[in-house]
Amino acid sequence: MVVALKKNVSEEKRAQLIDWLGGMGIKVHVSEGEFTTVLGLIGDTTKVDKDLIESLDIVDSVTRVSEAFKCCNRKFHPEDTIIDVKGVKIGGGNFCMIAGPCSVETEEQIVAVAKAVKASGANMLRGGAFKPRTSPYDFQGLHARGLELLKIAREETGLPIVTEIMSTNDLPLFEDVDVLQVGARNMQNFEMLKELGKTDKPILLKRGLANTLKELLMSAEYIMASGNEKVMLCERGIRTYSDYTRNTMDISAIPMLHELSHLPVIADPSHATGMARLVPPMAMAATAAGADGLIIEVHNDPMHALCDGAQSLRPEEFDALSKKITAVREASLG
Amino acid sequence: MVVALKKNVSEEKRAQLIDWLGGMGIKVHVSEGEFTTVLGLIGDTTKVDKDLIESLDIVDSVTRVSEAFKCCNRKFHPEDTIIDVKGVKIGGGNFCMIAGPCSVETEEQIVAVAKAVKASGANMLRGGAFKPRTSPYDFQGLHARGLELLKIAREETGLPIVTEIMSTNDLPLFEDVDVLQVGARNMQNFEMLKELGKTDKPILLKRGLANTLKELLMSAEYIMASGNEKVMLCERGIRTYSDYTRNTMDISAIPMLHELSHLPVIADPSHATGMARLVPPMAMAATAAGADGLIIEVHNDPMHALCDGAQSLRPEEFDALSKKITAVREASLG
Amino acid sequence: MVVALKKNVSEEKRAQLIDWLGGMGIKVHVSEGEFTTVLGLIGDTTKVDKDLIESLDIVDSVTRVSEAFKCCNRKFHPEDTIIDVKGVKIGGGNFCMIAGPCSVETEEQIVAVAKAVKASGANMLRGGAFKPRTSPYDFQGLHARGLELLKIAREETGLPIVTEIMSTNDLPLFEDVDVLQVGARNMQNFEMLKELGKTDKPILLKRGLANTLKELLMSAEYIMASGNEKVMLCERGIRTYSDYTRNTMDISAIPMLHELSHLPVIADPSHATGMARLVPPMAMAATAAGADGLIIEVHNDPMHALCDGAQSLRPEEFDALSKKITAVREASLG
Amino acid sequence: MVVALKKNVSEEKRAQLIDWLGGMGIKVHVSEGEFTTVLGLIGDTTKVDKDLIESLDIVDSVTRVSEAFKCCNRKFHPEDTIIDVKGVKIGGGNFCMIAGPCSVETEEQIVAVAKAVKASGANMLRGGAFKPRTSPYDFQGLHARGLELLKIAREETGLPIVTEIMSTNDLPLFEDVDVLQVGARNMQNFEMLKELGKTDKPILLKRGLANTLKELLMSAEYIMASGNEKVMLCERGIRTYSDYTRNTMDISAIPMLHELSHLPVIADPSHATGMARLVPPMAMAATAAGADGLIIEVHNDPMHALCDGAQSLRPEEFDALSKKITAVREASLG
Repeated sequence: MVVALKKNVSEEKRAQLIDWLGGMGIKVHVSEGEFTTVLGLIGDTTKVDKDLIESLDIVDSVTRVSEAFKCCNRKFHPEDTIIDVKGVKIGGGNFCMIAGPCSVETEEQIVAVAKAVKASGANMLRGGAFKPRTSPYDFQGLHARGLELLKIAREETGLPIVTEIMSTNDLPLFEDVDVLQVGARNMQNFEMLKELGKTDKPILLKRGLANTLKELLMSAEYIMASGNEKVMLCERGIRTYSDYTRNTMDISAIPMLHELSHLPVIADPSHATGMARLVPPMAMAATAAGADGLIIEVHNDPMHALCDGAQSLRPEEFDALSKKITAVREASLG
Repeated sequence: MVVALKKNVSEEKRAQLIDWLGGMGIKVHVSEGEFTTVLGLIGDTTKVDKDLIESLDIVDSVTRVSEAFKCCNRKFHPEDTIIDVKGVKIGGGNFCMIAGPCSVETEEQIVAVAKAVKASGANMLRGGAFKPRTSPYDFQGLHARGLELLKIAREETGLPIVTEIMSTNDLPLFEDVDVLQVGARNMQNFEMLKELGKTDKPILLKRGLANTLKELLMSAEYIMASGNEKVMLCERGIRTYSDYTRNTMDISAIPMLHELSHLPVIADPSHATGMARLVPPMAMAATAAGADGLIIEVHNDPMHALCDGAQSLRPEEFDALSKKITAVREASLG
Repeated sequence: MVVALKKNVSEEKRAQLIDWLGGMGIKVHVSEGEFTTVLGLIGDTTKVDKDLIESLDIVDSVTRVSEAFKCCNRKFHPEDTIIDVKGVKIGGGNFCMIAGPCSVETEEQIVAVAKAVKASGANMLRGGAFKPRTSPYDFQGLHARGLELLKIAREETGLPIVTEIMSTNDLPLFEDVDVLQVGARNMQNFEMLKELGKTDKPILLKRGLANTLKELLMSAEYIMASGNEKVMLCERGIRTYSDYTRNTMDISAIPMLHELSHLPVIADPSHATGMARLVPPMAMAATAAGADGLIIEVHNDPMHALCDGAQSLRPEEFDALSKKITAVREASLG
Repeated sequence: MVVALKKNVSEEKRAQLIDWLGGMGIKVHVSEGEFTTVLGLIGDTTKVDKDLIESLDIVDSVTRVSEAFKCCNRKFHPEDTIIDVKGVKIGGGNFCMIAGPCSVETEEQIVAVAKAVKASGANMLRGGAFKPRTSPYDFQGLHARGLELLKIAREETGLPIVTEIMSTNDLPLFEDVDVLQVGARNMQNFEMLKELGKTDKPILLKRGLANTLKELLMSAEYIMASGNEKVMLCERGIRTYSDYTRNTMDISAIPMLHELSHLPVIADPSHATGMARLVPPMAMAATAAGADGLIIEVHNDPMHALCDGAQSLRPEEFDALSKKITAVREASLG
């Protein structure tokens, strides 16, 4: 940690600050420049409150040099993490395509969609059984029954299943689920993250509504520090003042997360845009920017979908997109 | 719900849409203008997916006329809600002052702060025992021990206690707590909101990092629809591109929430700004704008606080502020 | 325009509103539903103040049905606009690559970069002579001398030149420039837009720091309504709370603008990210999402660039990228 | 400027960086810590590109210690600036109240409003003659005629006049205007700022739509560095994802700007909220937070206002508010 002092700070005030830091076991290396004095803090500075020091009237600025995240940091783990979900590999040059309806509705629906997306190249099936809805009056999902239907679809197609968990009280129900999704609204539900860190399930961690990349990585860190290293990061759009799309998809998060972390990065163009007709261009954009996979909503009858029909592709649209994705990926790798 | 169609929509496509709506039990009243055709949807439109209709290529715009929130809506409940916490009244012209340290640290600390803030006019005590921290490596609170210390401070001063709950698994520990706080990061942890709706505890619901007023009200609605009507809304700053403060305190949320809802509105200038020296002006601003109360961090030794010391007032600063708050409130009521 | 009234509005208040609208020459078509009354406003509603009506206490919501933009609206002009700059075509299936340094510095520099980017496939040359800088103490460009150097580079390579104009007082100096760029900070400098609308120069209009797509289109409308229809829209990143990139590049703006307007859409990954190593993935993403062209900063010696060196590619990096762009574009078109 | 290097940087790479800095006349003071090496840059670092250094692969972080703004910086000018507009003092403990219609419409209107607001305590008159409108089809103001009407109102009441200038080509028309307003959309129209810096008119500089405080101060710096030190800063709301108000009024900007700068800070609750009924609470909030003055829209007939009627107070509402403002200001000063 590097602390730059303001001009003309008295010797006494400076000594007080150094004493106080000493009391926390921090050694201070003073570097006096022509215009500024800079303190280099040496020792375990993770306990030092940056905001507090910044708020002192003798301090000009504080910079934390060492990274707050460790387990997910590429600096300490340069190789890409590869996660294996029943033989489907994610990360490290492998590309995965997760597709399926927003909500599981009936056996016919989920099985039909599963077969269709598999035929078009998907290698995992998504489908919501527990749905986070802004309103308590909206459809909340089929719950346990929905999970059963997903397993039937897996049985029929062999596709591993990905579905959202909203409370760790439900963990027993998810025992036979392949990938647990943490939704955007729970990205900083730290108690849940700690609990999921004690399982050995792969976790698809969605970026929160307005969270920074550092916060996303710190949430991954919560899971990993509790013992579970199988985390996939997911960009799904952030909140801005955008007037035509539901969210603004932050495509640059994909290469930036790859630089900061060794974890796989998945992109969700369906939630990021909220409009089916924007899904193909944004899916291709995310692929061109280096995503390790996509998660895309597909419904056989979007007009009658119980949830988020507006952003679902029809199976034939997904099929056309899937082919383009393969071509764009090859072109972007050069 | 009002649906405006695009120009030159064919009779056939329009009929298809009306048929489809009819299949959901919705009657449609067609109003043809010179340039546009407007469909008025009559019946229970809460099930109709606004986004889906908006995404149809024949539709220009969709407006939902009836409100999505009911229990917390002032339209259906014009009188201010007054919440009684062991004799302290909140809302309906009563002003409450909640003060205390960010984290409970020791018995000496919490009792000393409690006595000090009571002497300065506070009528409730805040203090964190379970702390949501961005990093898993930061101090997470004293947990059960912290709750015990809060109760000792209550015993010594008579001040009801307000403290954050992070998982409903901890509910048994909170049985003797007076007000349960839901933190910003859990504002859309819907499973938790439903569980809290089944208790009879007053809930202090903080606005999420980047949530709209409608979303805040919908989260209150989750609690109320489950049976607990004792909800206080809390503005604590929203995330923007601000360069000098941690968040941007949205003071206009205070009068706007009063217009939309009958629930009390509390303001938290400590978290909204992150800097002790901005707390007094922002506390006065929130009061002048009509807040029903304030929640302010006070610590007897901010330099050694285990958490958020930078934003804590010293007891003497709180005392001076408290007097001004009373005067500003009187002046603003005219 | 469609006005939905609140419940239980008195006949008298409703009549007052209708009278007042009548006074502005607006006819009102009343449609009474079970729960709501909806007024359809017929006539020239462009003069009606939507915000004012929305603020009336009897009004629930107001929706403007007809579009505020006309000249740039695809509804009224379904064919793509193709702009011809000395034989280089932009829009309508043509792809343009604009490259060059942030600032023009010396004849050697600009000629060398121009030759290099031409060899790598660029078909226009960019370079700043008038630089908008946040600080008055930063390098502001070579002004008239910079324009002369650009013309020399054009002479040497045949590439048309694109450069920013910051004041219409400078228009005489720009007489022989091929494309005038309006920077993000001047996107709503309406007086300048009107003046540029009176010229016959192609305009590259950059989206403002935090402007919506509608505002960008309205600014294009200012230019077009004054008589100049040769406008290219440019996405260059918007301001958010992003922690690692200068701006957040809104890739979804590209397909959305294509849907709303017939004007060409150019993407600027250099300013959108501020980091050279993010330019290649974001350039490919923008291309995959359907951009009609790219504008990319290239400098032969980024370490010594007078401005924005951090975001400039070296010529060899640009060359490698250019090849990938062509491949990605082909793949995305399918 | 302080540069922290990454771990394990080779001697050679470090030497290269120091050499390169030396070539710009910068001396480097190396401070080697246990984990990090910190370089202190000594000399004129205003020419050093922070972004470029930050982008180097051996660099961890860069902190600029010295401030980029000088003329408007309280560090170098601790006393409050007091601006005198024909005897009305602004700043330094003086409170000014600027009121009037959004647009000047007729002589009757502007004179009537001027007399009314003067009677209620306003000491300056506002009124737009040149109006920046998002759409080219909206009313753009009476231009020269509007300025004449303002002068008539000044003649009748003695109130100095404040009005917006949109192009420096119009400067001759504004010769007899008392305060020139720079609108939010022109806050970074740097050529205009430089021209205004050559006049001796007091400038009311509005914060841009999504600009930071530092950017606002840098724009003030443009004016001051050109020779005109009479600048008032104005907070008028920033763009967020707010769902009920036009903008989010950043009240904390008021005390923060006072800390950073000696310039007066004015608040504009009318544009910040866009709704007349939010103006009184927000005007009181801004006052309680320490604003040096308010600028408020007042219209004698908001329903027929040609522009922004929704946010205008009626004279009797302004009168009631004015009294409360005085009381809140006294209470907040304690």
